[in-house]
Amino acid sequence: MTNKRKGRAAAVAAPPLRRVCILTGGGDAPGLNAVLRAFVRACVAKGVEVVGSEDGFDGLVRTDGGIKLLDLAAIRGVLPLGGSILGCSNRANPWAYPMKDARGREKLVDVSEHVISRLHDLAVDVLVVVGGDGSMIHAQKLAEHGVRVVGVPKTIDNDLAATDITFGFDTAVATATWAIDALHTTAHAHDRVMVVELMGRYAGWISLSAGIAGGADVVLIPEIPYDVERVVQKVRARSASGERFSIVVVGEGAKPHGGHTATVTRGKRGHLPRLGGAAYALAAELEGRVPHEIRTTVLGHLQRGGSPSAYDRVLATRFGVSAAELVLSGHSGRMVALRGQSIVSVPLDEVVGRSKLVPIDGELVRTARAIGIELGA
Amino acid sequence: MTNKRKGRAAAVAAPPLRRVCILTGGGDAPGLNAVLRAFVRACVAKGVEVVGSEDGFDGLVRTDGGIKLLDLAAIRGVLPLGGSILGCSNRANPWAYPMKDARGREKLVDVSEHVISRLHDLAVDVLVVVGGDGSMIHAQKLAEHGVRVVGVPKTIDNDLAATDITFGFDTAVATATWAIDALHTTAHAHDRVMVVELMGRYAGWISLSAGIAGGADVVLIPEIPYDVERVVQKVRARSASGERFSIVVVGEGAKPHGGHTATVTRGKRGHLPRLGGAAYALAAELEGRVPHEIRTTVLGHLQRGGSPSAYDRVLATRFGVSAAELVLSGHSGRMVALRGQSIVSVPLDEVVGRSKLVPIDGELVRTARAIGIELGA
Amino acid sequence: MTNKRKGRAAAVAAPPLRRVCILTGGGDAPGLNAVLRAFVRACVAKGVEVVGSEDGFDGLVRTDGGIKLLDLAAIRGVLPLGGSILGCSNRANPWAYPMKDARGREKLVDVSEHVISRLHDLAVDVLVVVGGDGSMIHAQKLAEHGVRVVGVPKTIDNDLAATDITFGFDTAVATATWAIDALHTTAHAHDRVMVVELMGRYAGWISLSAGIAGGADVVLIPEIPYDVERVVQKVRARSASGERFSIVVVGEGAKPHGGHTATVTRGKRGHLPRLGGAAYALAAELEGRVPHEIRTTVLGHLQRGGSPSAYDRVLATRFGVSAAELVLSGHSGRMVALRGQSIVSVPLDEVVGRSKLVPIDGELVRTARAIGIELGA
Amino acid sequence: MTNKRKGRAAAVAAPPLRRVCILTGGGDAPGLNAVLRAFVRACVAKGVEVVGSEDGFDGLVRTDGGIKLLDLAAIRGVLPLGGSILGCSNRANPWAYPMKDARGREKLVDVSEHVISRLHDLAVDVLVVVGGDGSMIHAQKLAEHGVRVVGVPKTIDNDLAATDITFGFDTAVATATWAIDALHTTAHAHDRVMVVELMGRYAGWISLSAGIAGGADVVLIPEIPYDVERVVQKVRARSASGERFSIVVVGEGAKPHGGHTATVTRGKRGHLPRLGGAAYALAAELEGRVPHEIRTTVLGHLQRGGSPSAYDRVLATRFGVSAAELVLSGHSGRMVALRGQSIVSVPLDEVVGRSKLVPIDGELVRTARAIGIELGA
Repeated sequence: MTNKRKGRAAAVAAPPLRRVCILTGGGDAPGLNAVLRAFVRACVAKGVEVVGSEDGFDGLVRTDGGIKLLDLAAIRGVLPLGGSILGCSNRANPWAYPMKDARGREKLVDVSEHVISRLHDLAVDVLVVVGGDGSMIHAQKLAEHGVRVVGVPKTIDNDLAATDITFGFDTAVATATWAIDALHTTAHAHDRVMVVELMGRYAGWISLSAGIAGGADVVLIPEIPYDVERVVQKVRARSASGERFSIVVVGEGAKPHGGHTATVTRGKRGHLPRLGGAAYALAAELEGRVPHEIRTTVLGHLQRGGSPSAYDRVLATRFGVSAAELVLSGHSGRMVALRGQSIVSVPLDEVVGRSKLVPIDGELVRTARAIGIELGA
Repeated sequence: MTNKRKGRAAAVAAPPLRRVCILTGGGDAPGLNAVLRAFVRACVAKGVEVVGSEDGFDGLVRTDGGIKLLDLAAIRGVLPLGGSILGCSNRANPWAYPMKDARGREKLVDVSEHVISRLHDLAVDVLVVVGGDGSMIHAQKLAEHGVRVVGVPKTIDNDLAATDITFGFDTAVATATWAIDALHTTAHAHDRVMVVELMGRYAGWISLSAGIAGGADVVLIPEIPYDVERVVQKVRARSASGERFSIVVVGEGAKPHGGHTATVTRGKRGHLPRLGGAAYALAAELEGRVPHEIRTTVLGHLQRGGSPSAYDRVLATRFGVSAAELVLSGHSGRMVALRGQSIVSVPLDEVVGRSKLVPIDGELVRTARAIGIELGA
Repeated sequence: MTNKRKGRAAAVAAPPLRRVCILTGGGDAPGLNAVLRAFVRACVAKGVEVVGSEDGFDGLVRTDGGIKLLDLAAIRGVLPLGGSILGCSNRANPWAYPMKDARGREKLVDVSEHVISRLHDLAVDVLVVVGGDGSMIHAQKLAEHGVRVVGVPKTIDNDLAATDITFGFDTAVATATWAIDALHTTAHAHDRVMVVELMGRYAGWISLSAGIAGGADVVLIPEIPYDVERVVQKVRARSASGERFSIVVVGEGAKPHGGHTATVTRGKRGHLPRLGGAAYALAAELEGRVPHEIRTTVLGHLQRGGSPSAYDRVLATRFGVSAAELVLSGHSGRMVALRGQSIVSVPLDEVVGRSKLVPIDGELVRTARAIGIELGA
Repeated sequence: MTNKRKGRAAAVAAPPLRRVCILTGGGDAPGLNAVLRAFVRACVAKGVEVVGSEDGFDGLVRTDGGIKLLDLAAIRGVLPLGGSILGCSNRANPWAYPMKDARGREKLVDVSEHVISRLHDLAVDVLVVVGGDGSMIHAQKLAEHGVRVVGVPKTIDNDLAATDITFGFDTAVATATWAIDALHTTAHAHDRVMVVELMGRYAGWISLSAGIAGGADVVLIPEIPYDVERVVQKVRARSASGERFSIVVVGEGAKPHGGHTATVTRGKRGHLPRLGGAAYALAAELEGRVPHEIRTTVLGHLQRGGSPSAYDRVLATRFGVSAAELVLSGHSGRMVALRGQSIVSVPLDEVVGRSKLVPIDGELVRTARAIGIELGA
């Protein structure tokens, strides 16, 4: 109890381990391979074999195949690579798993029994799930059904409450900042307003961080419904003071006051805003109200791509080693996390379903306002 | 005559020079500042003063202001910067210049007399125009009216017939290749088809070069109307052979066989394909016909942005110095150009209005086909 | 008192502010300009004028000149630039300031009275010192003499005890990681041992972080005197297992067991190890004892150079705003700092002279060992 | 005969091909893997099998092993990778091959018979040598002994007379330019002279190109013996005009007037200047003669490392395809090359042993002088 609070985990008596299975679920994030590499190296050094389930839970759902030996050779050279050598998949719920019937129609099937018995048949002692909130919900449920489970948090948007930072976020912010830097010169040359949409359906961490780092003039985030009039005023004020251009960063899930509210229930993908929707909507609103041509850029998948930053490689490696330490010391039902500058572990049942939004009166928002960034409200 | 053919320029008797004016017209391209820096340094070393017209021809069209002294201090530190310290503008034709009347309505006005007399009033001996085909047409016309003019070619699309390569192109290809690299890892992790639209309304140079450099599977360019069925077959064939994903590069002006043909007359902007149009059209065609999710990325203005590559900085510097040499040796009516690996000069009247498309049976297309890139026809 | 401990600062009754002076002392670090920009923006928005002392304390030591107005125009466009628009200087001690006499011989002079009276003459209400431990010692001493002082920590080596992270460190690690990545391919192609020396005279933070991020095989840091035999064994073991090459990272201040100990008193520069010394000494030791050619790279000043990373720009901006908040709320004798993920302030007299070394049995060292990095002991 | 002159190759009657062998000799260069990938793809598409000799000629010298099948799977994903998946080796001369005897002493052995008979035993129809001048000399000699041989030029220094540009050079210049950019900010912050040594034992192409692209103030190249007094004067003149710093680029093989002349016979490695020698010698000469601290950076192996630039990937791919076309059309004794912007082929016997130095009165040198770069003479 006390331990949970403090984020430290008490070791329990552990049976000898022989084989663990790891999978990478949800959208990909730079650093997944660094987690896999560190986890495998730490386990193999202790005589424990690692196998990987391909494409998230898909490898375990299959009746054969889908499982790959992760020995030292398998993880050689993967540290600087984006993506995941195991593949990813958004299908994370063994209790309602989308499968195609004989006529090709997709329906939701309960495959949890199969997954649990397949883990048993494969002689897997522990399942390590690298994934976002969706994956953790189901990892936790598997734990309740007796599977030993350890989690590693992954969300490029940085919106998991349980960890201060996750790998992938720094790379995404770096790529977004590079893009804002690049747009500055062309915006200046042509006296333009540049609207650039960054990732973040529910949380504005990427937009706010990259907006600060890139020197944006306006940053609109999902947490603060915006008044387009304030954006117009900011752009006009810059024009009046002789600035030739403005850079407007808009988070994927940002919306105007009283505007169409993106459904914030995670996972209900049908209700999500379309990629580019936020940027094009804003650009249309600005058109004709500011004395500039407007150009729109949707950075999209580029933010997930490319080689992980040094920061993300270090954090992912620390997570991978820490997960291995949990596994090797007999823990289950816990997820590794960063608290402050320290790696800790937290109970899965306390962390699932809790997201972390940008505090609208917190230090980062205050910093943005202090340097003159218009937040739209 | 013979000299023109050979791209060498005969020096004529030159009056002593005192002041030259330079401007950067059309869309911005990485390397413009390197041209300005080299030109200014080379002129100032010979005792010639350089002034710049702000925002392309706009600075000259104004009745006052719009002209900036370009001394050594003005060009300090600009070498690694994208954009243009002078600003750019697409308004290049002094004989039909878009101006607003008292009621704010735009109409085309002949300002050529004004521009010519302003150059005289400013005691400008030579006008140097850094710009694309549109700018060169009007530079040549000014030359016919007695203005001493020297040109420096600028087209990020690399579609000017008069020069083998222009600055900005290499940076654009590098940025596009970086993007394709980044999309590879996320495409692989999720078994996706990634459609990425690159610049090039009439010419496929960027798409073909970046497609080869980035390892694209399909490259569709304006010069080769495509059959979507061939794209489908290529993606399916890759799937069948176990490849999880495909990368499809589509040039901004690429179109299907018998599809809506983008008007290729340069400068008629109303008839141009919309940014993103080619990519979204193709993605819609592929949807449901390939066993993959499809994601679309429009790289857009990012290709113009950022710091120029080393290659572009060297080429731009060579152009800037060569333009200064033409000016200092009393030439007029000529444009600098790269032929093979050499800097030459060519008569403006021979080069305007001639574009350079990718030869559909040339070596670059043959190279692409030889390594298995599907070109759609 | 309690506040000090907790790193929170109680506001005191503040006289109305008119002008503050800021300076950047010590070696340069990427992010200095982001601090200046944020500080100026936050002050100017509150009606407070900012001036800068050029070249660290030098600007204040002069009898005239050396002081520069930092208005909004002065800090425009500086966010992505490395270095400092104010210049830096290692001469930080007004009580023993190196000056040249009439015959050009340098001697140490007490200029503290002059500095204090010049601040008074300039009508400076508060002095903000951005600098390392040396600068803070003297900032604190000025505070004891009645100057209102606020500090911002700067150390690219990340070795200040008072703050978990400083700006510049992330960029240095990123550059070092890029270098290690680059050396991998050429090391592999030629079966070589690559020795690369990274910054860090007393602390191994850069070496250990970049070594983990870059996939080094051996990392030697000042905190852990190394046994060259262990390095030899590691390289041989890799050879025996079929690995063609090894990457050995060595911190600037790393030394063998019983080797010549670099004097660790900060500031006594005459006793510091020479740049490259650690790497060449190690390479000489390895020569002939491993079955490889050995190549040495000293990354040196490149680690300070270039555009700050997005991470460093955000952190530096937070520091700059936080320093402005301290100034504006009437505080003195405090330094901003990062604790965990939060910006706090700490009393100068508690932080000076305390360095932060890599804990030799801490989590980062344990992580390195767990993934098989040889630390030499 | 005429064909040779024009760089076009006449097809000869070709026997049906079954298997070709390719190797990468000499120092590694970014783009080698792109050559291999393109060559393999082009050959496999025509039903020809490709094998690779590991570590340059070493694979062929062995009595077994050392030969690797290069099918489509083997070259998957290698396009963005530096180095060579085959490994490299400087041992290129089968007529005087360094081998160890029973007592571990190295001596030169004639293994040409063995190599020729091994190619026969392996049923190799054509040998493709990717390498520098040394490799081509021996490729040509093998051709004289009846081996069908095709060459692909490789020299990161760009000093082969037979081709205008080779792959790897652009990446090296880009990396060097990045380094010069990075040194600018730290040089400026501390009023320093930065001496940076770049690759180029005999030819100054990298130094001159990167010096122009990076905005160096002084560039010293092997082709122009320098007068250190001119360097001193340049630095002093900059100081006098208020410039705080100077960047001095020095090519690896640059030397003062009447200084110790590096032996220019290629391949006599014992007589080569030491890495860093040129820079440290110059820094020592400048010490005390300029009013600045001096710092020295030796970029070294970093210039070979890292992912090839887009330019180099395209050029390497064109070379690889062109080599395949030569092989498939029955040619032998020829090397592919870039002339102007075109890929051609040239006879091996005309190209070996001819190097390409920077013309000391050519356009690139003239450009450098025109923008104020001091070349030391």
